[in-house]
Amino acid sequence: MAESKKETAAPEGRFAYEGLARLMHERSRLGILTSLVSHPQGLAFNDLKKLCRLTDGNLSRQLAQLEEAGLVVQSKETTRQNRPQTRTTLTTLGKKRFFEYIAELERVVTDAAEALPANDARRRLSTA
Amino acid sequence: MAESKKETAAPEGRFAYEGLARLMHERSRLGILTSLVSHPQGLAFNDLKKLCRLTDGNLSRQLAQLEEAGLVVQSKETTRQNRPQTRTTLTTLGKKRFFEYIAELERVVTDAAEALPANDARRRLSTA
Repeated sequence: MAESKKETAAPEGRFAYEGLARLMHERSRLGILTSLVSHPQGLAFNDLKKLCRLTDGNLSRQLAQLEEAGLVVQSKETTRQNRPQTRTTLTTLGKKRFFEYIAELERVVTDAAEALPANDARRRLSTA
Repeated sequence: MAESKKETAAPEGRFAYEGLARLMHERSRLGILTSLVSHPQGLAFNDLKKLCRLTDGNLSRQLAQLEEAGLVVQSKETTRQNRPQTRTTLTTLGKKRFFEYIAELERVVTDAAEALPANDARRRLSTA
């Protein structure tokens, strides 16, 4: 019983991380959202593609999902060279949801770091 | 051209986060690994199930995948009440891979936090 008590000291769902919504947690969408939050003026399709190292098809699919959920907006514009281009911008809702997600992600990092002795954690997390 | 330059200042793949290996990034497996790294003595199946709020079937499937990759080990043992029980422990390889993954996750959190003005970021990330 003593062993069992020690193991269940953490409350139920302590490591469930339910705030990690799949829509934002999936790696390519996470990269897209982080790119966009770092570029408040929005990003052209080709720049986003390069920054996230995605194919045209994959980026299009991910952007469609994010747009459907209201997290991003895609708009048509014309470059100075008069070529059509699509620019994607994070919406206000997208920014809010993304930072809620990031706060949960920060809890994962903190929980993991606490599991290591302080010096060990600092060394590993800063050099990896 | 000036706009375009500004947008592509970040190098190709800057937000690709290729270290976020799907095996560890999937939410339920991420919860399992964080539980295990926080309990170096290992965890009984039922405790792990509660901590991660997973069903029996789902937890079994996720543990099988993690064991196949060599990140965890499942062993049979007998409780003091003479009941059989399965205990899961993180392997040395599992701990190493997990902290490499966590280091990449920390980069995502840092990139996101840098996109917000300092006060704003502190407020959001600490109260969300």
